[in-house]
Amino acid sequence: MNSTSTHDRQPIPGVKDILAVSSGKGGVGKSTISTNLAVSLARKGLQVGLMDADIYGPNIPGMLGLEGKPQIDETGTRLLPSNAHGLKTISMGLLIDRGAPVIWRGPMLAKMINQFLFQVDWGDLDLLVLDLPPGTGDVQITLTQQAPLTGALIVTTPSNIALADVRRGVEMFRQTEVPILGLVENMSYFLCHHCQQPSPIFGEGGGERTAKSFDIPLLGKIPLDSRLRHCADAGTPFVNAAPDSPATRALEKLTDQVSRLLAPN
Amino acid sequence: MNSTSTHDRQPIPGVKDILAVSSGKGGVGKSTISTNLAVSLARKGLQVGLMDADIYGPNIPGMLGLEGKPQIDETGTRLLPSNAHGLKTISMGLLIDRGAPVIWRGPMLAKMINQFLFQVDWGDLDLLVLDLPPGTGDVQITLTQQAPLTGALIVTTPSNIALADVRRGVEMFRQTEVPILGLVENMSYFLCHHCQQPSPIFGEGGGERTAKSFDIPLLGKIPLDSRLRHCADAGTPFVNAAPDSPATRALEKLTDQVSRLLAPN
Repeated sequence: MNSTSTHDRQPIPGVKDILAVSSGKGGVGKSTISTNLAVSLARKGLQVGLMDADIYGPNIPGMLGLEGKPQIDETGTRLLPSNAHGLKTISMGLLIDRGAPVIWRGPMLAKMINQFLFQVDWGDLDLLVLDLPPGTGDVQITLTQQAPLTGALIVTTPSNIALADVRRGVEMFRQTEVPILGLVENMSYFLCHHCQQPSPIFGEGGGERTAKSFDIPLLGKIPLDSRLRHCADAGTPFVNAAPDSPATRALEKLTDQVSRLLAPN
Repeated sequence: MNSTSTHDRQPIPGVKDILAVSSGKGGVGKSTISTNLAVSLARKGLQVGLMDADIYGPNIPGMLGLEGKPQIDETGTRLLPSNAHGLKTISMGLLIDRGAPVIWRGPMLAKMINQFLFQVDWGDLDLLVLDLPPGTGDVQITLTQQAPLTGALIVTTPSNIALADVRRGVEMFRQTEVPILGLVENMSYFLCHHCQQPSPIFGEGGGERTAKSFDIPLLGKIPLDSRLRHCADAGTPFVNAAPDSPATRALEKLTDQVSRLLAPN
């Protein structure tokens, strides 16, 4: 496949590891997982960057409560990432007005992704987390061609429909020779606030089945908690706002797994 | 904006109306709404086609229980749509193996969308429903340039984050001069099966606020019912499987509104 050749991959100076957080399907909570994972890793003392690679639907600034345009560095050539909650962040959402559409064809997308990788002053980072858009298109192709990805995390829900999309994501990373660190099942069950009973709204057991059929580890199952959505809307990372909740405990377990996989020694 | 000029729009012979079902954000249930709306319109006696414009994540065949490749017509130049549940359907998912990734850059996407519009033997249709992928990229640009869209329906959830994505969708259709018929709020609340209490998992009042701020009608609010996901996974339209449920009643009200807006006389 010519379009996914890997010969153009070049390191980002100062950046040790690059982790792609991906999902075939949109709306599975990928940005929520990316954000909370990045914040949680930063709380462990790592230098962490978060790049919002979803150019059409850049939700990261809203989730981190970031406002205002990023500055340009003194050479006039590089963007300075915005700082919040211990992260360095860049997003299309910081460059345009909130809600303004980015009506671009693929080549423009690819150019912007290249700028986000190589024209942002990331400084020294232990880890750059990339929050990918849904699908297997221009952004994914550009990233797998140009960025030396340490590995990929695939986020899904327990639904069968979502799992078909996971399959596509797994195949894409295998074809492009990006190591898949593991699978995260989000929205695993909902705990009713009224009666405290769990409801498997989006299905059951899908994460285990998919992990097994692709022989990749299931790194975590995050319960559906409406406060997660509330925190995302309010611009506050959930792991900070609700440190004792089951969802935060699940996210912290995931964080431990990811940091072990990135630095196995 | 050159890239969204409308001078290439041409009618699809035999097709009366074309409705785009769109959402800025993925995972809001757009394909579920498209499918059930199309089935519901067909049950009212309309000739309805359903085109799955999500090339990277084609979920419609799974939701309709469609398998097998589409046939070519006797001239050898046109695809015959697949038939199920009273609909004529075309999808990338019918042309590739389930779960195979489509690792394409934008120009290939645009070409496939053009083929789905003009190289499929749709026959006489009262309505062709287009299930759009998330975002405002190549597929959306191609469709708004080439297809004479009667109107667009925008699907969202009550969350603020989803609403920022809606804003982008609304602006895109306005810039490309596609009439917006209205907004549909999906996953409005969850009815616990244990205690029957509603939980606004994804927020409250977002649909009303957005509809008001953009001066577009809110055409429906569809509750979150885990059987909707279950039916989608099983390949059975929910409106057929659970005709007496609150979600079906909400979908039927939406169907009435849409058919009134398409044929106001």
